[in-house]
Amino acid sequence: MSFAKLDELCRIHSAIDHAQAILGADEATHMASGGGEERASAMGRLAAMSHEMLTAPEVADWIAAARQENLDPDQQAAVREFARVHANMTALTAQFVERQTNARMRSEQLWRKLRPNGDWKGFEPALSELLELAREEASMRGAALGLDPYDALIEQHDPGSRAGEIEKIFAELKQFLVDFVPEAEEAGRRRKAPNGLREFPVEAQRELGIHLMKAVGFDFEHGSLSVSVHPFCGGVPTDVRITTRYRNGDFLSALMGVLHETGHALYEQNLPRKWHHWPSGRARGMAMHESQSLFSEKQIGRNPAFWRFALPFVREKLGVDWTIEEIVAAVLEVKRGLIRVDADEVTYPLHVILRFELERELISGSLSVRDIPQAWDEKMKANFELSTIDDPKDGPMQDVHWPAGVFGYFPSYTLGALLAAQQWQAVVKALPDVETDIAAGRFDRINDWRRDNIWSQASVRSADEITRKATGSALNAQPFIEHLKERYGA
Amino acid sequence: MSFAKLDELCRIHSAIDHAQAILGADEATHMASGGGEERASAMGRLAAMSHEMLTAPEVADWIAAARQENLDPDQQAAVREFARVHANMTALTAQFVERQTNARMRSEQLWRKLRPNGDWKGFEPALSELLELAREEASMRGAALGLDPYDALIEQHDPGSRAGEIEKIFAELKQFLVDFVPEAEEAGRRRKAPNGLREFPVEAQRELGIHLMKAVGFDFEHGSLSVSVHPFCGGVPTDVRITTRYRNGDFLSALMGVLHETGHALYEQNLPRKWHHWPSGRARGMAMHESQSLFSEKQIGRNPAFWRFALPFVREKLGVDWTIEEIVAAVLEVKRGLIRVDADEVTYPLHVILRFELERELISGSLSVRDIPQAWDEKMKANFELSTIDDPKDGPMQDVHWPAGVFGYFPSYTLGALLAAQQWQAVVKALPDVETDIAAGRFDRINDWRRDNIWSQASVRSADEITRKATGSALNAQPFIEHLKERYGA
Repeated sequence: MSFAKLDELCRIHSAIDHAQAILGADEATHMASGGGEERASAMGRLAAMSHEMLTAPEVADWIAAARQENLDPDQQAAVREFARVHANMTALTAQFVERQTNARMRSEQLWRKLRPNGDWKGFEPALSELLELAREEASMRGAALGLDPYDALIEQHDPGSRAGEIEKIFAELKQFLVDFVPEAEEAGRRRKAPNGLREFPVEAQRELGIHLMKAVGFDFEHGSLSVSVHPFCGGVPTDVRITTRYRNGDFLSALMGVLHETGHALYEQNLPRKWHHWPSGRARGMAMHESQSLFSEKQIGRNPAFWRFALPFVREKLGVDWTIEEIVAAVLEVKRGLIRVDADEVTYPLHVILRFELERELISGSLSVRDIPQAWDEKMKANFELSTIDDPKDGPMQDVHWPAGVFGYFPSYTLGALLAAQQWQAVVKALPDVETDIAAGRFDRINDWRRDNIWSQASVRSADEITRKATGSALNAQPFIEHLKERYGA
Repeated sequence: MSFAKLDELCRIHSAIDHAQAILGADEATHMASGGGEERASAMGRLAAMSHEMLTAPEVADWIAAARQENLDPDQQAAVREFARVHANMTALTAQFVERQTNARMRSEQLWRKLRPNGDWKGFEPALSELLELAREEASMRGAALGLDPYDALIEQHDPGSRAGEIEKIFAELKQFLVDFVPEAEEAGRRRKAPNGLREFPVEAQRELGIHLMKAVGFDFEHGSLSVSVHPFCGGVPTDVRITTRYRNGDFLSALMGVLHETGHALYEQNLPRKWHHWPSGRARGMAMHESQSLFSEKQIGRNPAFWRFALPFVREKLGVDWTIEEIVAAVLEVKRGLIRVDADEVTYPLHVILRFELERELISGSLSVRDIPQAWDEKMKANFELSTIDDPKDGPMQDVHWPAGVFGYFPSYTLGALLAAQQWQAVVKALPDVETDIAAGRFDRINDWRRDNIWSQASVRSADEITRKATGSALNAQPFIEHLKERYGA
């Protein structure tokens, strides 16, 4: 039976995936610095091996044959999603994948080394090499999938998303934000900020984070919290590795990061166990994934109701005596800044739109790596009246994505924010008193909704179908705009 | 060219090996408890994949053809050692390897869970399954290699070692130790023990360990120190993972463990980089590996000269005011005890000989798993006048080896101790003032000798050849017996 052959193939493939996921998390958390070169080469070999297996000539035959077999709806969805992944895989040769994986690993390791000194010149050649590989990839994928090159890259991260659609949504959002950012900043200044921001020991911050992770549903039997330069959620669904970075003087930076990664982790931990080894059992693209992290971080974690529950623990662990008004003022601060990952939810989309615009030009060839700092600076000035031209560390060297050879990913962040707002509206409709739950530290009803509507759906349906079924409408900017107005408006 | 084909195969194989090594270290240090099942299954698949590649029908042809090619001596040694590994690999089927790997992972995870409560009954079925698999393995390997079954298992850990030879050496040693242990205990009691053993914070112990690791030559660019239940040295030569376990009241336990694993790590870190991916570039069996850990821990780390160098750091990090006589008394304490890994170098061989005797019977079938606690107890009484019958946690459940399905490994520990003593005699002959170096914290001349004679030799020659060339004679018990008499005698 061909379905059984595909099932066995998925099991072998998911063993390599498991190794890659743990090696990836390990690289950013526990690897010795001198271990990078052999790690890059080992991961390159594994990627090539995995690619070779999935693209072997007989696999296409198995897919065709499995489609004729008598399968239940879950199995049909599994074959359908497998076929989609297979089409994306066969677009590239094994040699190209290995070359690209090696270049990505080397470049990311170089970035980790050069970023602290903002050595853009030293990093430029590696990034140029990666961009050339990405353009080659985009062109090969585009030809195979019948998509524009940049769309073909977006497809790898957020299947079904297209730059044309994104452009329209982003235009609506950008137009709104131009006027709204100054208004929200002004409204924020009227809130009473907390005093007594001071040194908070990392260990106390870590304990607070773990306490809140547990409260919102993170399963420590199947995951852990660690430290890395750039926070991430990695590992495998039965062992989800999330990380944060601690800053002594600003506990909210690490804590909100922890809540964000916990949202990713909840998605992974609640994927259907039975289908872990099939593509249909994985998360439905990165916009959906980001909607889960932003739902946890923004819709729940920055909701004033959440702080009625969380403030006592902050007081206990960090020894502060803030009022609810003060902590909420800190949580809802709006301030134009240089760093995307530190941005508030009002200004964040402008960081993403900047990157979307630049990488579209990079892939089309109308912008070169050498000209990134200048182009970046112009957009930062236009959006925020801020300049990074003298400080690439806080400009185009701040993100891991391009150094890791990842293009077409950035839009997912803001699409995820829109989806999260849309999901929140649906939750409020289904559970009108949801904020009472949150204020009491009860997250089971919310998690049930999320499990039923998002997590358990994995990749059985398309992101569009999941969103329409869960929220009653297609992805759009309105719920997010309403959310910002309500939470941050004057 | 067939050599090139083998080289490429070794590169792919070493990528899987890299993944397995890091996944293995990760499992014992950072894995979430609920991640064990999928980890076991992933590692089982990877092991099968690796096995399948190395045993593919064409590989035997490549070996035969490569032997006819015009190769330099290093390449010839590489092919020779590859052929040896290949012969051992082809002795087992891929199905058997996967079945055994899965059973090993499950059993080791169960052991981690049941050991704290000493639940021998709960663990018995898993261990029985593993023993049956080990006997099956021994019989298949024995048939393929023309060896007795237990010899065929020893061969996997210490190529060239045979139970008959080991038995003779162990008999000589056991006979010596029967009288010597009470004498050494008595001599130890006359030394002035340190007072003020108290709680030492883990962080201070860790800093002390790292300081001494650096001093003796551990390269933190290519390795790290972490924590696990059972200390080990794992990872890959460019990223060696060593672990220890901390006990508040006994800093020497963790510290000597750190020095021990550092000895293993020095070997790995100094293997010839060019041959990392070939079997000939790996360490020459576990007796040789253990000789390196014991050289670092016992020959250097318990040498009174070492403490003239190390004591000031102990004082500084732990805030104690011991004299050199007191710390040396603690380091040279001899005391019969239940736990192998806590045993001093005088009583340690008796723990190993006990296990050697028992596992020989287990593999031959004359002892069943059910009867292990009784047999263990009888030998503990005979050797040490100690009983563990009511406490399997400190009896047959104390070691990770059998729970991980590893039989034929234990002799390596004591063979390693003999080799280390033999190497030390050779070092003293080459560098008569070596203890002056040690007392001054200078380890470069010693490390040069070890690098030239052991580390750089990797598996280019047999263990016997390496030992004869480095020390002038074959492995024997005399240097170790002389060492014990000199250091611990009345």
